[in-house]
Amino acid sequence: MTILKEKKITSELVFDGKFLKVFSDIVMLPNGKKGRREWIDHPGAVCCIPIINNNKIIMVKQYRYPLKSQFFELPAGKLDAGESPSDCAIRELEEETGFKANKLTFLSTIHPAIGFANEKMWLCLAENLHQTQQNLDKDEFLETIILDLNEAIMMIWNQEITDVKTIIGLLWAERILKKRKISD
Amino acid sequence: MTILKEKKITSELVFDGKFLKVFSDIVMLPNGKKGRREWIDHPGAVCCIPIINNNKIIMVKQYRYPLKSQFFELPAGKLDAGESPSDCAIRELEEETGFKANKLTFLSTIHPAIGFANEKMWLCLAENLHQTQQNLDKDEFLETIILDLNEAIMMIWNQEITDVKTIIGLLWAERILKKRKISD
Repeated sequence: MTILKEKKITSELVFDGKFLKVFSDIVMLPNGKKGRREWIDHPGAVCCIPIINNNKIIMVKQYRYPLKSQFFELPAGKLDAGESPSDCAIRELEEETGFKANKLTFLSTIHPAIGFANEKMWLCLAENLHQTQQNLDKDEFLETIILDLNEAIMMIWNQEITDVKTIIGLLWAERILKKRKISD
Repeated sequence: MTILKEKKITSELVFDGKFLKVFSDIVMLPNGKKGRREWIDHPGAVCCIPIINNNKIIMVKQYRYPLKSQFFELPAGKLDAGESPSDCAIRELEEETGFKANKLTFLSTIHPAIGFANEKMWLCLAENLHQTQQNLDKDEFLETIILDLNEAIMMIWNQEITDVKTIIGLLWAERILKKRKISD
């Protein structure tokens, strides 16, 4: 087996922004030479797949400034300091959509940008939902949409849904719901 | 329909690294107030799903410094300046694995980190492969692995594959190959 590990020699915080923390590290490469790695320190995030009646999905439509366009997404958000992924999932879902989940099933963790960020994202199925009140951050603007799961899945294959967490969350939910149907 | 668009007021390059370019922009939010958006400017990337005999996938195992661990991945890489996604796909696949593709099928574009980066990634099926020579970048270290597609798909559901491009690329390939079987 090849040794692939890279060891940190020095680490410098080169940008400490409101949202982004950027580091530039000098590392020891597997061949003993030095290299540079620039990376974003991310607090981690959750993505909810909120399901009503085993077939409807609550999604959001949001403008994403880095790409200057709107995206169909599953509700998601960053972990607050010290917050558990499940607390974050319930909080973010309610804040973004006004639905509170009474049942949360952890599906997987995924890694969205392994080349340049340490972001880890927890995927959770959110069920037994009841409506409360939306409570967006002051700089957050979005539209809530309820779609049939099948319709949302078709939007992946039609390239209308291109956000990675949303693609993976929907395909994972489809698999779980098919399994449930078989075992019913 | 809610207006969700945010308009740029000012943009500042706050870190101009070897790999990462970080901007901090002041924007006009949909409610007329000002907000800050920090984001990474990314050149775009391709991800190949290299298939042999309709059932074997060429993958790579790579150490990812931001997460301090090894990942099973599909071969992928960033676009060089002025390079087309298809040229990039063929180049990166050959550099990383030593396999040259004579057939490339575009599947979709995906967006890995819409919250903080403008990265767009092209997914391509790579077929009619013949072996040439691996030619890694001087700071790139990886191991090539050939897996059954079914085995790789199981590694998604078992959480052994957690890299988003790899999850989506494998599930997309599975769908295409099933369709081909049905139409055979």
